[in-house]
Amino acid sequence: MAKKLDLTIAQLNPVVGDLDGNRDKIVATMAEYADRSNLIVFPEMIVTGYPPDDLVLKPYFMQRVEESVNEIIAATAEHECAIILPAPVREGDQLYNCAFFAENGEIVATIYKNHLPNYGVFDEARLFQPGPLPEAIDFHGVRLGIIICEDMWYQDIAETLGQQNVEAFIVVNASPYETQKDARRIDGALSCVDRAGVPLVYVNQVGGQDELVFDGHSFILNPDGHIIYRAPACREITQTLRLEHMPVQGRWLIESAPVHTPMAQNEAIYEALMLGLRDYVTKNGFPGVIIGLSGGIDSALTAALAVDALESECVRCVLMPSPITAQTSLDDGQALAHNLGAPHETIPIAPGMKAFEQMLPEIKGLAHENMQSRVRGTVLMSMSNRLGYMLLATGNKSEMAVGYATLYGDMCGGFNVLKDVYKTKVYELARWRNDHKPVSAHGPHGEVIPQNILDKEPTAELRENQKDTDSLPAYDVLDDILYCLVEKDMGWPQITERGHDEQTVEHVRHMLDVNEYKRRQSAPGVKITERAFGRERRYPMTNRF
Amino acid sequence: MAKKLDLTIAQLNPVVGDLDGNRDKIVATMAEYADRSNLIVFPEMIVTGYPPDDLVLKPYFMQRVEESVNEIIAATAEHECAIILPAPVREGDQLYNCAFFAENGEIVATIYKNHLPNYGVFDEARLFQPGPLPEAIDFHGVRLGIIICEDMWYQDIAETLGQQNVEAFIVVNASPYETQKDARRIDGALSCVDRAGVPLVYVNQVGGQDELVFDGHSFILNPDGHIIYRAPACREITQTLRLEHMPVQGRWLIESAPVHTPMAQNEAIYEALMLGLRDYVTKNGFPGVIIGLSGGIDSALTAALAVDALESECVRCVLMPSPITAQTSLDDGQALAHNLGAPHETIPIAPGMKAFEQMLPEIKGLAHENMQSRVRGTVLMSMSNRLGYMLLATGNKSEMAVGYATLYGDMCGGFNVLKDVYKTKVYELARWRNDHKPVSAHGPHGEVIPQNILDKEPTAELRENQKDTDSLPAYDVLDDILYCLVEKDMGWPQITERGHDEQTVEHVRHMLDVNEYKRRQSAPGVKITERAFGRERRYPMTNRF
Repeated sequence: MAKKLDLTIAQLNPVVGDLDGNRDKIVATMAEYADRSNLIVFPEMIVTGYPPDDLVLKPYFMQRVEESVNEIIAATAEHECAIILPAPVREGDQLYNCAFFAENGEIVATIYKNHLPNYGVFDEARLFQPGPLPEAIDFHGVRLGIIICEDMWYQDIAETLGQQNVEAFIVVNASPYETQKDARRIDGALSCVDRAGVPLVYVNQVGGQDELVFDGHSFILNPDGHIIYRAPACREITQTLRLEHMPVQGRWLIESAPVHTPMAQNEAIYEALMLGLRDYVTKNGFPGVIIGLSGGIDSALTAALAVDALESECVRCVLMPSPITAQTSLDDGQALAHNLGAPHETIPIAPGMKAFEQMLPEIKGLAHENMQSRVRGTVLMSMSNRLGYMLLATGNKSEMAVGYATLYGDMCGGFNVLKDVYKTKVYELARWRNDHKPVSAHGPHGEVIPQNILDKEPTAELRENQKDTDSLPAYDVLDDILYCLVEKDMGWPQITERGHDEQTVEHVRHMLDVNEYKRRQSAPGVKITERAFGRERRYPMTNRF
Repeated sequence: MAKKLDLTIAQLNPVVGDLDGNRDKIVATMAEYADRSNLIVFPEMIVTGYPPDDLVLKPYFMQRVEESVNEIIAATAEHECAIILPAPVREGDQLYNCAFFAENGEIVATIYKNHLPNYGVFDEARLFQPGPLPEAIDFHGVRLGIIICEDMWYQDIAETLGQQNVEAFIVVNASPYETQKDARRIDGALSCVDRAGVPLVYVNQVGGQDELVFDGHSFILNPDGHIIYRAPACREITQTLRLEHMPVQGRWLIESAPVHTPMAQNEAIYEALMLGLRDYVTKNGFPGVIIGLSGGIDSALTAALAVDALESECVRCVLMPSPITAQTSLDDGQALAHNLGAPHETIPIAPGMKAFEQMLPEIKGLAHENMQSRVRGTVLMSMSNRLGYMLLATGNKSEMAVGYATLYGDMCGGFNVLKDVYKTKVYELARWRNDHKPVSAHGPHGEVIPQNILDKEPTAELRENQKDTDSLPAYDVLDDILYCLVEKDMGWPQITERGHDEQTVEHVRHMLDVNEYKRRQSAPGVKITERAFGRERRYPMTNRF
């Protein structure tokens, strides 16, 4: 006989460290959804936000977490609905990554994370101890196997729960976005359901936290591989689903529920960048952002993302022509600001350049180019200090990789939304945005990035007739070599086999390695690739390899 | 009957990633010391340098490591001497932190690290798998238990080896400096020897690697707690010791060998700072450094450290007075440069300030102060770009903690030697240096830091009559609160119990938390405390706790 379960997936956006705010959000969700639900499932570490990093090592923080958990558990007494509440917990001297199964004001069971991710962006072995293997929980006649994030990927967990004859898995997650991640999660879920022959509910966090974006994309999967529910990406949603469990067939039946189509790659990246930027700005309380528009593609896409993520009036654009700046650069920058409806002003930097030429008569060449970039950085930071708006840096991943940027110049800024976007992808995203307006975007429909910005050759415009290709390989070559080196850890023999010449590969590898010191001082950005600079790629600065 | 062993401790300074250079150094040590030794012991991961971080995840790097190890092992065929050669190793898909025991051109045994440190500055669980428990090695009639670093601190390792009736421990290490670390190492070694009742040889790496300084301080300890040999701190030394093993008494007898006295705290810190700075500059190939002298204590101590670490002619000092700068500041800066024998020049920044006032007529208050600091940063970076000298930032730990520094202004620089030195300790070290010249220092004897710099009240001198105490608590109060928060993870109830008032504690805690974004973009510095900013303290920037 079918057993019914009214299950609510709470794909929420917590703020790291905001124990009161997160608690209030959880309690409000319970107040709204408890009456229609038997069980509300919250994502991994919802109480603290994820990743809390070394915050959990602070005893006073964990004391406050415990208080917050107790308040939430107490609130379940007011409803006839159970919750799965993930939080870190301290037991004796040890910390665990846990989920509490609670109802009627009490904790019924505690589920511990067993496999602690400690690679890529994750540092959980630094913080937590592996907990004991999970035990099944009988709830409303259905035997549930509750799993925390990484544990879904390990055979022993699904097998342990399978041996306990679970009838469904519920997995709570804080799984950050990267391209293709959504498909990989479904693969992982499939091999989990395969082992036990039962369906799986996957609940993910949503929101930006420093360098990470959690894209949501919660789903329900039957063991036949059928996805019977999929939440939208990159936004909060709380959805109650009436599930009928068919024990003989080992699957859920669901009353009509939306199955959101996964986004195509460029749309998914654009949404992730918008969310990462929006949350960094709003969670840190900035009233808006400042962007220096050069007339080039990077600052143009950054401005479009900022207007889409925030509102046009929150995005102050500044054009800072020098005597070297072409009129077309100014025209293109102004056309862009006009398209975006963003306030903009023009501050020529000749007075600053002249002052430094007077103070440092011997300045020329690359030092003179860097000086121009730093004069612009100082103008922008002065405006940022005056207005309280955060400056956005506009560098892309290709530039960050090879150090084609001026430290304390164009690298100035509190956040760099394109930091993990290769230059070739910057062009793709700009073209995509001219053809599409994302659902949650505040910006206009239609062409926002002037065609001339897309067409002209890239230049830093710090000396006459400069082109990026004076110093760098063509971007399609550069980006492929960087992909091999950064994302795939290839040695140069493998890379030259792809048709790149040895000298170019060696040149790029050298630039990549010697510029680690610049990246170490760079602004954070949104991780979108398999390996982002920052917390995901930890290289020594002093490194003679 | 006593068994004799001629043992050479090679307290060497490798360069991370310099596989050829490290190999050559090892082979040269063998060539020089093999004839007089039965066994040469190298420190942990000598082949790659430590910590190699994600470099070891690169298959091509590990392939080259294997080649390098093979070349070194092959070279042992030329000598009648065994070596303990620590290196990372790849076996199948797994990486291990190992030590090879080799002689006559062959690996006799492989010792694996079992306990992988993954706290503080360490990320070994990210890189390596724990290896099997160690097995004793019989060598020249002595049964040796070889241990890699962290394993010395765990009971199971000493017990396993004790059950195998080892007669002596040899521990290879890459243990970074912090205050009191030397004493803690001896405590750890003592509890290890206690378990087996046998003596212990402790061999540590020496040298600076980015934020870490390995201080050497290798030693030999008998189970009665007697230290029969101690190497000097902070310099390379290779020392052959004739040890007689007394199996009945379970201890070594040693022919006369130097026992270097441990340094007092300020001397040890000063030496660690010198070494960290010297190695960052030289390992990265900079011909020298640039320092902006404000006439204040931080830039004065930084300049003294730089002259001591390098040579006075490699330290270019720049004074950049503004219309607000007092004549005494200029005089003090010049007197300092004169004492140090360092080349110095004066570049007034009024032209730059006027230019920005013209470009940004509305600039005033804090934004104007920051602008001045950025004009100076741009002057210094322009000189750095022109000369290829690295700029040194001069901020101290107290400033870094509370954000009392201008991003892209005085925070500019490739390295910040005082980053982990509290302001009160800056004064202590300056006074100490005026009374002592460290052995390895290149600078002069006698008073190097003018007394007036030590006596006057600290000021950023960015507006008339400014004092640090306008914005901050007195430094003795500030530093104690910071120590509680940063090093000891105390909550404010514990801190107020020490006599600090609640409002001050809350103010400091707030400044500490909201300035994480500044620290994330700050230059690296030398870790000297129990918890340094940087890789050791990983806090979210977006954090509402």
